[in-house]
Amino acid sequence: MFNTRHLQLTEQGKLRHFLSIEGLDRSLLTEILDTAESFAGMSEQQVKKYPLLRGKTIVNLFFENSTRTRTTFDLAATRLSADVLNINIATSATAKGESLLDTIRNLEAMQVDMFIVRHALSGAAHFIAQHVSSGISVINAGDGQHAHPTQAMLDMFTIRRIKKQFAGLRVAIIGDILHSRVARSQIHALNTLGVEEVRVIAPKTLLPAHAESLRVTVSHDIQQGLQDIDVIIMLRLQKERMSGALLPSEREYFKCFGLSEEKLQIAKPDAIVMHPGPINRGVEIASSVADGPQSVILQQVNYGIAVRMAVMSMAMPIREDRHD
Amino acid sequence: MFNTRHLQLTEQGKLRHFLSIEGLDRSLLTEILDTAESFAGMSEQQVKKYPLLRGKTIVNLFFENSTRTRTTFDLAATRLSADVLNINIATSATAKGESLLDTIRNLEAMQVDMFIVRHALSGAAHFIAQHVSSGISVINAGDGQHAHPTQAMLDMFTIRRIKKQFAGLRVAIIGDILHSRVARSQIHALNTLGVEEVRVIAPKTLLPAHAESLRVTVSHDIQQGLQDIDVIIMLRLQKERMSGALLPSEREYFKCFGLSEEKLQIAKPDAIVMHPGPINRGVEIASSVADGPQSVILQQVNYGIAVRMAVMSMAMPIREDRHD
Amino acid sequence: MFNTRHLQLTEQGKLRHFLSIEGLDRSLLTEILDTAESFAGMSEQQVKKYPLLRGKTIVNLFFENSTRTRTTFDLAATRLSADVLNINIATSATAKGESLLDTIRNLEAMQVDMFIVRHALSGAAHFIAQHVSSGISVINAGDGQHAHPTQAMLDMFTIRRIKKQFAGLRVAIIGDILHSRVARSQIHALNTLGVEEVRVIAPKTLLPAHAESLRVTVSHDIQQGLQDIDVIIMLRLQKERMSGALLPSEREYFKCFGLSEEKLQIAKPDAIVMHPGPINRGVEIASSVADGPQSVILQQVNYGIAVRMAVMSMAMPIREDRHD
Repeated sequence: MFNTRHLQLTEQGKLRHFLSIEGLDRSLLTEILDTAESFAGMSEQQVKKYPLLRGKTIVNLFFENSTRTRTTFDLAATRLSADVLNINIATSATAKGESLLDTIRNLEAMQVDMFIVRHALSGAAHFIAQHVSSGISVINAGDGQHAHPTQAMLDMFTIRRIKKQFAGLRVAIIGDILHSRVARSQIHALNTLGVEEVRVIAPKTLLPAHAESLRVTVSHDIQQGLQDIDVIIMLRLQKERMSGALLPSEREYFKCFGLSEEKLQIAKPDAIVMHPGPINRGVEIASSVADGPQSVILQQVNYGIAVRMAVMSMAMPIREDRHD
Repeated sequence: MFNTRHLQLTEQGKLRHFLSIEGLDRSLLTEILDTAESFAGMSEQQVKKYPLLRGKTIVNLFFENSTRTRTTFDLAATRLSADVLNINIATSATAKGESLLDTIRNLEAMQVDMFIVRHALSGAAHFIAQHVSSGISVINAGDGQHAHPTQAMLDMFTIRRIKKQFAGLRVAIIGDILHSRVARSQIHALNTLGVEEVRVIAPKTLLPAHAESLRVTVSHDIQQGLQDIDVIIMLRLQKERMSGALLPSEREYFKCFGLSEEKLQIAKPDAIVMHPGPINRGVEIASSVADGPQSVILQQVNYGIAVRMAVMSMAMPIREDRHD
Repeated sequence: MFNTRHLQLTEQGKLRHFLSIEGLDRSLLTEILDTAESFAGMSEQQVKKYPLLRGKTIVNLFFENSTRTRTTFDLAATRLSADVLNINIATSATAKGESLLDTIRNLEAMQVDMFIVRHALSGAAHFIAQHVSSGISVINAGDGQHAHPTQAMLDMFTIRRIKKQFAGLRVAIIGDILHSRVARSQIHALNTLGVEEVRVIAPKTLLPAHAESLRVTVSHDIQQGLQDIDVIIMLRLQKERMSGALLPSEREYFKCFGLSEEKLQIAKPDAIVMHPGPINRGVEIASSVADGPQSVILQQVNYGIAVRMAVMSMAMPIREDRHD
């Protein structure tokens, strides 16, 4: 969709922007996971603070409201000792008729170091990355229906922490694949990291037209689809889809594609259950499963901080003309 | 109303959550006041900063808007070097249909250390305290008509600073006792700390049905009630009560229960005048009294920072598995 | 308009509040520029952080929304290691009927050290400066149509950085002089710093009645007015003026007073183009000029941080009763 390899990496192959999983290879994804590992022990520490990004300014540029994602980026930046600037775009200068590019240029002139971009339009983070000056990095915090790469990486981190390796794993992604930037990024990450199989399970109306081209197997039946599965990733059902012709009622959806305790037993006995949150209890997942022993949903949230710290510290540009 | 002793203290009798004055004994309240004393000299310092909570994350979880209270907690946390996360609940994930408990669980997973909770429902802070994991503390910043314990403690601190001791003091609380979480917490604190008398002065419509059970004396006449009083605590009149049958006009209220210079002379000559703010000038208190020599209203605000620093530093959990 | 010399300076002639350029002499303005120079190298540093204001609390008291100005003050304070409190006045206690002065008194009692004030009424910052206690400074971040002194000083800084000195310079200010607090502060600063000529270029409807009393020359013809000019300062056109009788259409305005490449050639070949932002492309300035080689608009934004750091560090009161 967007050619990003040369945009995301420096000439030396280091991370420069983090826009999508596409265009990144296994060694770079593994480097992110390994770096996150060094931050993940933080939770047991009294002082959750690293001086790595002291004196850096990170701008949360959220064109779309998302308390949860903004909060995790905010905490990650703060725990790296960076200064965080939250820009609410709806009430900012763009409302005075200033263009997006003028807003970016002005923030650049204030010597900020990194933009965390959330936008309802696919490609927004790429557009900004193409236009920022050389001293600034861009992290995609979710753009339209395109990508949500830090979410995908925290999912990979969770899987690796529990399953130890990707080889041999069969992973099911269940729900609205068609509209999900999370699913798109997960599929790329899982394939790049070398799982045995990515299986998408969804009604036909919620699958992209050429799903197979994404290197996945497809199932329209959750009972069949869950067989031999090691990792189950549930997607959040956007309730606004319900009003259209795409979906039957919530109750009907839960019956067909919701994860109940009964259906969970079809998967491998040590299968783990994941969800990017916030969950719709009783719609895509039963409460007893979300809170049950196989659920790792809250670990995902926990690891999200460490993974974002990893991506931020890896992508932070080092100025060559340093004087301090 | 809520049984909280075992919830608020650790097995060793140390502060774990700070939810209400009820259930805490004199030695613990005195420890809070003594700890606050060590922070109160801060105002004369060039650098108002203590490293005590460095690397800790404190979440302001305000379900009800209150710039003043949020600001004092924010400043107290910042001056203890903690990182502060302000969560505006109205626009957060709960708006996407996530339950309060799911919001709490998610914030917990981000390794936050303390929740400052303000809520329009009585018992909200207790509910959260009952459900958080062992590494997290909850401070009640005001819940419904139930309790506002940090406000009560800053009032106690102000009284002790000026009057030196509680023994022998006669304290009048004047105004809408019935609906006031502040009054409820003040009455418990004053009695626990051993004042001679707590006298509530209010029209019958603004007193609870069994006021005497609170260990107070009751007066419906401010002229009589102010005799021999050392400390006068005015309550803010919620103007929305005016529209109902509970109260006559503002002018009539001021005439009967407002504190004028004339009425102030009935109390002891060295009586002090307190008010939790924001004040309604000319409704419950005359401007000349609020700004007069016996008023300690702005000292209350000042001491509010020190008292909140004390409560935060005392309740902050120490993780036993520390590695740093 | 407001007599401010004695209000802005201490008895020793040091900066106490920064409210307007009027009342300050050349040596003080030069001290601000020299201090800003010491911060301006910051952009090349890895760690953009000075410990000068550590432990100080700076309050952004914005009664009028301005993301850009608030952001630069926020960054300037943060890079001086101060703690920043953003108070959204619209939703604060003033909404509960508390007066402005009570709000100020309460913030004072919380031991804040500095107010950055933005207000739609001329004189608001002066009013607050007249009423704060001795330990607190006030910086005017724009009041009504009166003054915007930090904007003027960052403009002066930009001019001095590029033109090296003020003597001999001819500066044109073009646009809505009548309603512009920026223009008013610029004119005072340019004259105090000793430029050869300040020329204002505007239609008669957008000039004050007695413009000449401001020590400027006046032109109503941009073609004539741009001759021999070293520095061109464009003003933002407030689009709401368009609806009244003051101005013709945007297209007509651009034709008469907008800065095109063609008109720019009338000025000296090394003339620089300035604008306080946000710019209205194609209204007061052509895009090709705003983005062209003579434009220094983004440098102005950049220097704005250093100038605000200078003003904040100079005006921060030193408490004499220090104990640390």
